[in-house]
Amino acid sequence: MGWGDLGVFGEPSKETPNLDQMAAEGMLFLDFYTASPLCSPSRAALLTGRLPVRNGFYTTNAHARNAYTPQDIVGGIPDSELLLPELLKKAGYINKIIGKWHLGQRPRFHPLRHGFHQWLGSPNCHFGPYDNRERPNIPLFRDWHMLGRYYEDFQIDLKTGESNLTQLYLQEALDFISKQQASQQPFFLYWAIDATHAPVYASKQFLGTSQRGLYGDAVREIDDSVGRILKHLKQLGISENTFVFFTSDNGAALISAPRQGGSNGPFLCGKQTTFEGGMREPAIAWWPGHIPAGGVSHQLGSVMDLFSTSLSLAGLQPPSDRQIDGIDLLPVMLQGKLIDRPIFYYRGNELMAVRAGLYKAHYWTWSNSWEEQSKGIDFCPGQSVSGVTTHTQEEHTKLPLLFHLGRDPGEKYPLSFASEEYQQAMEHISALVQQHKATLVPGEPQLNVCDQAVMNWSPPGCEKLGKCLKAPESDPKKCSWPH
Amino acid sequence: MGWGDLGVFGEPSKETPNLDQMAAEGMLFLDFYTASPLCSPSRAALLTGRLPVRNGFYTTNAHARNAYTPQDIVGGIPDSELLLPELLKKAGYINKIIGKWHLGQRPRFHPLRHGFHQWLGSPNCHFGPYDNRERPNIPLFRDWHMLGRYYEDFQIDLKTGESNLTQLYLQEALDFISKQQASQQPFFLYWAIDATHAPVYASKQFLGTSQRGLYGDAVREIDDSVGRILKHLKQLGISENTFVFFTSDNGAALISAPRQGGSNGPFLCGKQTTFEGGMREPAIAWWPGHIPAGGVSHQLGSVMDLFSTSLSLAGLQPPSDRQIDGIDLLPVMLQGKLIDRPIFYYRGNELMAVRAGLYKAHYWTWSNSWEEQSKGIDFCPGQSVSGVTTHTQEEHTKLPLLFHLGRDPGEKYPLSFASEEYQQAMEHISALVQQHKATLVPGEPQLNVCDQAVMNWSPPGCEKLGKCLKAPESDPKKCSWPH
Repeated sequence: MGWGDLGVFGEPSKETPNLDQMAAEGMLFLDFYTASPLCSPSRAALLTGRLPVRNGFYTTNAHARNAYTPQDIVGGIPDSELLLPELLKKAGYINKIIGKWHLGQRPRFHPLRHGFHQWLGSPNCHFGPYDNRERPNIPLFRDWHMLGRYYEDFQIDLKTGESNLTQLYLQEALDFISKQQASQQPFFLYWAIDATHAPVYASKQFLGTSQRGLYGDAVREIDDSVGRILKHLKQLGISENTFVFFTSDNGAALISAPRQGGSNGPFLCGKQTTFEGGMREPAIAWWPGHIPAGGVSHQLGSVMDLFSTSLSLAGLQPPSDRQIDGIDLLPVMLQGKLIDRPIFYYRGNELMAVRAGLYKAHYWTWSNSWEEQSKGIDFCPGQSVSGVTTHTQEEHTKLPLLFHLGRDPGEKYPLSFASEEYQQAMEHISALVQQHKATLVPGEPQLNVCDQAVMNWSPPGCEKLGKCLKAPESDPKKCSWPH
Repeated sequence: MGWGDLGVFGEPSKETPNLDQMAAEGMLFLDFYTASPLCSPSRAALLTGRLPVRNGFYTTNAHARNAYTPQDIVGGIPDSELLLPELLKKAGYINKIIGKWHLGQRPRFHPLRHGFHQWLGSPNCHFGPYDNRERPNIPLFRDWHMLGRYYEDFQIDLKTGESNLTQLYLQEALDFISKQQASQQPFFLYWAIDATHAPVYASKQFLGTSQRGLYGDAVREIDDSVGRILKHLKQLGISENTFVFFTSDNGAALISAPRQGGSNGPFLCGKQTTFEGGMREPAIAWWPGHIPAGGVSHQLGSVMDLFSTSLSLAGLQPPSDRQIDGIDLLPVMLQGKLIDRPIFYYRGNELMAVRAGLYKAHYWTWSNSWEEQSKGIDFCPGQSVSGVTTHTQEEHTKLPLLFHLGRDPGEKYPLSFASEEYQQAMEHISALVQQHKATLVPGEPQLNVCDQAVMNWSPPGCEKLGKCLKAPESDPKKCSWPH
């Protein structure tokens, strides 16, 4: 989902009354970022509070290569990483993930081995259908065991776009919240729905209800679901004791537009890029009675801050034996403070850009390769800024391209290198970058090696369902991704 | 000002709390259009309820040529046109225009000859400074007489962007409203401020207050002023008896961006074009106690509807002896109705595009000429949609380019000509166009001829001020505009 997909962020159909209302009752973050323009690394950063380059969710197979965890990925979230639920567990929280995990699919990477108590969802995206010979259909798990597979037991009709998965995930969320409230145990719910990821789907009751087509139907169902969850919290009388945050893991995937892709509002390009359209996210914090209603913040925020903020809410300290990139946003949300901090835009293993205040410096520019362009893959459809949305990787480390995101949120007008404004801003940003690079200890890259043998052939529970498939022989090789 | 310039429409700096609040207390129109992507014709349409091609505010000097009223324009609003204030006058309204008139500057076109009782403002844009030999500085009028000239008596500091004009216009508005309330006389105030038109200006107290630079400062001052006007109405106890509408006369001028140009949000291109960025406008209706607070409408609306709606509010009927393009929006605002009607997008004398429902068909495409492009004039900076943002005038009358503005508000993905969806939508739109063209009686074009002798050399009142200049000899010729 992109920054521009919510009514409150200016989507022209304005079809998200519940999220808009959530913003009216809570705080809207206008300058909130993911830690990567792609799903797996973004989610790893959210749960560890650390940049993907630190927690290992990147590849060195190619320079500035975005990578995720396909079915045949060998790596995953390292045991050495401390995930938010692992820490919350110590404070007595019951942790549940509903939806897409995406931090590795081999047994050692199972979410219940990394702090979660419960899971309903899948290790990978809902791509498919597959033939179960070359490639198995993706399993859906309840806790340790698979419940079935997408396209077999959990339908997604690619023709109509119909699937009731979001309803399944919603009901599971409501039930979990009810049970936790009844048992008086604090809980952490990571509600990681994926209906807006291609192939986009929605339940029958939402199909055809949006001006925006199927993608809009999916957004509407998510909006409705968030509304129900918030209402449920209110009805249970725990809304003033429950912190809720809504955001997305990367910008809208414009390669899937218009039928399967969303909107990044006035920003440049989309998912996969380190332009604003790839990494600035819709973000709303909600905590009635604590966060003032109708608040608006220009705090530079990051999904990694949800790690530190959640720990703070639970009365915990972040681990002190490692670099944490997230910051505690409570002073921002509760006292309206603004904390000075930069945003680092990585693409794979490369620091592409840095934002400090309203300035953003690009050290590398790249949209997508000419080769991809010729195949119709375009991360910036209809947009072309000379020297900025480049189709080759262009290095600007000696003389970064600088934009003022207040005057120019669309990154169309690089500042003159000769201007005093450029000199002053770059002096500040250069120091930040130098410091960042000097202290950076990259993690072991997890997304380099793929092996057909590790795919979801026989997940635990397959015997009972008669759904075990025979794995082929191990054949490790460098991962490659369609784009 | 563009659709994307208000926080409520997704401007990332969200710096328009008063206009956002106006929307929260009133009704937001998401699909509201001007009648021309340029100022003079748009304003002529607003005040006559008629398309510029009918009321004469167009040129035939070149095909699809946008035209406005520069200082040397010979034409203006024809006497045969009935303006909103002329009609309201009959119902006892006192009518005032504050700000830019732009419907002609020769004495016969004076606003007080066309229904207004009072005027503080100027006949032209605040371009300048001029040398008063080749070209006189633009006068500012109070009613029949000039008060002085821009850059001489009414300062605009082009270096700092400072000018107190908006404050002057605000105070005049507040005073007028107070007086009208005191005298218990109904009033029509046309508050036509122009601070966001290049050269952009703001008062000292607003300079440097926006994240967006000078343009943002100007928007903030306008936002603050609207807030003051609404507050004034409330304090006087007449808010429930006063209908207020906020909109703009064309999309943001992207040729002036980033320092002097605004945002059209997710839409394509800007001012001068018939893409959405050129003609979709921010629009908010406010009438406490009548228009439900927090309303949102997808009614296809037009500035011309303000003519018909205002007449309806005054209990008047629109003239029956001519085609009126505006419709009465009261059923939309008071009862939430949706009225089926098309939107016609003209550029000069050519019908470029038509919107019906969510479909928009382009009969002609054009951004700006290659010649202009080579001079750095670009109506679509950073945007380029193959076959759509064309640099030559491309005719598609036989096979229009069709877009679905719900799925594709950015006009990036023309529908396949072969699709059933295309066939069905075009069948409907073709009928609308045929009917429109069959009954269209173009007015006498007013914007063809320019003459240096008619410039603001010696406006009434110049004697008293010692500011009369000697007019050169008459030398009528075809008007030309810088772009």
